[in-house]
Amino acid sequence: MTDAPHRRGADRTEAIMRTTLELGREIGYANLSIEAVAARAGAGKHTIYRRWSSKGALLLDSLLSLNGPGLDYPDTGDVVADLRAQIYAAVDLLAGASFGPLFQALIGEAQHDSRIAAALNERFIAPQADKTVARLKAARDQGQLSPGFDLDLAMAILSGPLYFQLLITQEPLTHEYVDRILDALFTGMGPRPRP
Amino acid sequence: MTDAPHRRGADRTEAIMRTTLELGREIGYANLSIEAVAARAGAGKHTIYRRWSSKGALLLDSLLSLNGPGLDYPDTGDVVADLRAQIYAAVDLLAGASFGPLFQALIGEAQHDSRIAAALNERFIAPQADKTVARLKAARDQGQLSPGFDLDLAMAILSGPLYFQLLITQEPLTHEYVDRILDALFTGMGPRPRP
Repeated sequence: MTDAPHRRGADRTEAIMRTTLELGREIGYANLSIEAVAARAGAGKHTIYRRWSSKGALLLDSLLSLNGPGLDYPDTGDVVADLRAQIYAAVDLLAGASFGPLFQALIGEAQHDSRIAAALNERFIAPQADKTVARLKAARDQGQLSPGFDLDLAMAILSGPLYFQLLITQEPLTHEYVDRILDALFTGMGPRPRP
Repeated sequence: MTDAPHRRGADRTEAIMRTTLELGREIGYANLSIEAVAARAGAGKHTIYRRWSSKGALLLDSLLSLNGPGLDYPDTGDVVADLRAQIYAAVDLLAGASFGPLFQALIGEAQHDSRIAAALNERFIAPQADKTVARLKAARDQGQLSPGFDLDLAMAILSGPLYFQLLITQEPLTHEYVDRILDALFTGMGPRPRP
């Protein structure tokens, strides 16, 4: 009972973030305003601005509050199968209507606001990259990958084409595309040996 | 003499685009306004809006008017050397102060405005991708790459990590990073053969 004011504060914060996602999905990030979020969440505009300095900062926290995306790597002993399972899940998240378009808008915002870029990296991108590198490193330590295998670059080759598709060509992300990237990374695309 | 009014129109268009780039470099895209471009270029605001529906559309044309980036592929017969030379040039352009930050801002805008995304793809990304695929295809036809070499995916593996670095981790783009990507693509990163 003594923590009731804190509970109310936490409930209000959660309601504001939930409303941000709901309204953002309905009308798109470009049309979203802090005023509209405040009105629908039944909160004061100043309450929102006290905690979040911009619409982008509010979106960042709201998306990360979903948290549960469950993008951890399994470790079945088969590194390719484990990467495939995790990247399928990531692609389903990015391609899904409830996360993808708002996440894409957040990355757009990061191009204009270096604080958003830094926070996005620190709180979402880098932890995900660390997990990928850790799973690859375990495989390398077990002799499943060559000792010279470039872990950071492998992470970039697994992620880069997906983000290129999401942000630049804006074609749909599919499991089939993930399979092609994994095949290229692990079976290689080397020059044909001369006869 | 008879085309003087057209000349004036073309000169004015060019002056507006040049001013957009100058002012954008000075104050950053986020702080740029069509009003400020109009004032510095000595043009009417409505003159600008008649031709460009938004700040993003104006930036797109202004950046593409630079045109001369010279991102064509050489064809020396050595596909890896040719890719290296072209991607070095692309990275120098993206990492350079006169193009990079505004190009990054344009991609940011594309995340909120599907017309900008479509125009960026059609007028810059797709033609560049086509050149990469054509150079790879020539190498494949000459037997320098295996017959099953996936040209589109190779293009995405060459581009994706660079855009990931430009837009997401925002680390500096270097020639050394290009070398690592080329090595990975052509020498492969396959699993270690079991003893």
